[in-house]
Amino acid sequence: MTDEVHLAAAYLSRVAEPASLALWRFVRHEGYEGAAAAIRRGAAPPGVRKATDARRTSADPEADLDAALHNGIRLVMPEDSHWPHVAVAPLEHAAVRLAGERDRGKSRPRFRPDPVPPLALWVRGDAELLPGLGLRSVAVVGSRAATSYGEHVASEFGFGLAARGVCVVSGGAFGIDAAAHRGALGAGGEVVLVSAAGPDRPYPAKNEPLFDEVVKKGLLVSERPPGSAPHKQRFLARNRLIAAFGGATVLVEAAHRSGALNTAGYCRDLGRPLLVVPGPVTSAMSVGCHQELQRDEDPARLVASVQDVMTWVDGSSSDELEPVDQTASPRDLLDEDERRVLDGLQVGQGITRDVLMRLSGQPSEVVDRVFPTLQRLGLADCDGQLFRLP
Amino acid sequence: MTDEVHLAAAYLSRVAEPASLALWRFVRHEGYEGAAAAIRRGAAPPGVRKATDARRTSADPEADLDAALHNGIRLVMPEDSHWPHVAVAPLEHAAVRLAGERDRGKSRPRFRPDPVPPLALWVRGDAELLPGLGLRSVAVVGSRAATSYGEHVASEFGFGLAARGVCVVSGGAFGIDAAAHRGALGAGGEVVLVSAAGPDRPYPAKNEPLFDEVVKKGLLVSERPPGSAPHKQRFLARNRLIAAFGGATVLVEAAHRSGALNTAGYCRDLGRPLLVVPGPVTSAMSVGCHQELQRDEDPARLVASVQDVMTWVDGSSSDELEPVDQTASPRDLLDEDERRVLDGLQVGQGITRDVLMRLSGQPSEVVDRVFPTLQRLGLADCDGQLFRLP
Repeated sequence: MTDEVHLAAAYLSRVAEPASLALWRFVRHEGYEGAAAAIRRGAAPPGVRKATDARRTSADPEADLDAALHNGIRLVMPEDSHWPHVAVAPLEHAAVRLAGERDRGKSRPRFRPDPVPPLALWVRGDAELLPGLGLRSVAVVGSRAATSYGEHVASEFGFGLAARGVCVVSGGAFGIDAAAHRGALGAGGEVVLVSAAGPDRPYPAKNEPLFDEVVKKGLLVSERPPGSAPHKQRFLARNRLIAAFGGATVLVEAAHRSGALNTAGYCRDLGRPLLVVPGPVTSAMSVGCHQELQRDEDPARLVASVQDVMTWVDGSSSDELEPVDQTASPRDLLDEDERRVLDGLQVGQGITRDVLMRLSGQPSEVVDRVFPTLQRLGLADCDGQLFRLP
Repeated sequence: MTDEVHLAAAYLSRVAEPASLALWRFVRHEGYEGAAAAIRRGAAPPGVRKATDARRTSADPEADLDAALHNGIRLVMPEDSHWPHVAVAPLEHAAVRLAGERDRGKSRPRFRPDPVPPLALWVRGDAELLPGLGLRSVAVVGSRAATSYGEHVASEFGFGLAARGVCVVSGGAFGIDAAAHRGALGAGGEVVLVSAAGPDRPYPAKNEPLFDEVVKKGLLVSERPPGSAPHKQRFLARNRLIAAFGGATVLVEAAHRSGALNTAGYCRDLGRPLLVVPGPVTSAMSVGCHQELQRDEDPARLVASVQDVMTWVDGSSSDELEPVDQTASPRDLLDEDERRVLDGLQVGQGITRDVLMRLSGQPSEVVDRVFPTLQRLGLADCDGQLFRLP
């Protein structure tokens, strides 16, 4: 990869907020450099400009990459060998599916934007942990205002999972998050902290020693560039990554309408197992947990021990941890134009550009625009003369 | 009803232990007096003799009825206006269904004999509570060695349910049972204690003040005659009545392999909702509860509040609290001979005895033997001359 691609990724990472399906599709069409250049000069389609206009001229990717270099932070993007494909793939499927459902009028919780995949990740620590995310990994989340019971369970689960070779993922917050991280660190196991702020901005500040320990022994990940402050939208967006990075999510304690339920919602969106620890019915901090277990539709699974969680982790090679939507394929990610051009291709024989235009009913500029995407997704091929299915 | 019938019921209640489907069917064929007389003179079929031979000559129903009279105890039987038909009907269906399943080789837990209906009930206190059992009633059960958390929840649930006009049913044991009874008594509500010993033998003895209070303000019920000591088989048999008397059963605390899980099993047998209170995963007294909630097949429902329980109680007039086996009917209770004779009857017209013998393919002695049962079940009619469907 060239520095130019990294500069483009750093630029897009800065301007792409909130994450949007339109922008993500645009980047896939144009590539990182093409998309970044178009956005910077204000030439992107309206849907993309809306999401990027606020920062498109002020973004300074050179400065962000410099700051990263000074702080031991790396920028990882999909072309990198470390990119967590297994964890991110369900985000693609879910975002496309949910966008379709919303187009058909199905409402979504306002506080849970579609789980659009990240364009790039800023990481500090052991990047080798990234590719395993979504496989033998479990997110452990819950309330910041946890009880001693909740912190005890989170710490036990973090320790027990890490001791069994499972990567423990959480968000670095007070309460359940911190207890889970500490448990995993205590076992000398794999631990990933997904931050809502820039990777050089430990938040909450009082957990700085914990962040430092995670960087030393595990991995700190953020979608936001260095220097980014934490704020509410970033916590919500971050939660989709926690749910994606865990092959399953364990909810330890959650009050009624707790923020941790947002992560649980993303876990469901992704078709990942949502595992919930019950607690005393007299505890306000377990109300949200019990509600998740009581849902009529798609209730969470009760887990009472690390062994219970392991039955879901060890199923990671089976269907259990696969996205629920078994029919999702790269084809589902195509837009209308792309699909039409793809449908024009013929099984078993190459066709000329003119024939493809005729069979797909698309003008030459559409064929030229969408074909690189079809190639990038491995759905089509061209030897310069003939267009064909691979 | 004559004294003779009550004497026969008292006699059968004494000799019928353990409860058996063969004996129960025999009583239905012969009536209480006929069955009692046949058993006493050793003339019952082998299957019935096996279940009754131990006590058939020593039983002294006059003495039992005398002892009852002296202790304010009444003997209630199916012909009584107070008989709890709604509660007992699912026992009939379940016993017949489970006997059939066992005949086909399906195994049952050794400690959970088939839920055969009781032949009679000895009651102290307000017999008016009987007919409502299985309607607005909830059994609250759990461990004797309860934690303070469990006792707190049982007491709250007992109080809250009773305050909402729900009859609270339990077994009078230490721990969860006693807490539930006390809660219901505290609310001045309806409370039923189902004892494993005779109705004049409070067990455990230390709970005698509680038993007295229940007799004063609610109802004490036992299947065993006065003077009967408690022992293990009687507790197991008693549990089927607790499950039957509650329109739903709430399990508050149960250790791994707790006796309370036996009642939960009967609740499932009867197709009644099994509602389970979760607790801390660190508490051994909640392990059995969490296991019930984790079952792959027919998992229990989590309840975290009295309101949660009420959603199942208020469904009592809907399908929710009906026996699961919606196809069960009096016809399912018939044996082969009874069914053949019934099948010989004609829609819309009466037929003579000779025609019935011919159409059913049954000899006269079979027709004579089974017809009274068909009449008692309301499945057939006879005006002395002609046999017909009702």
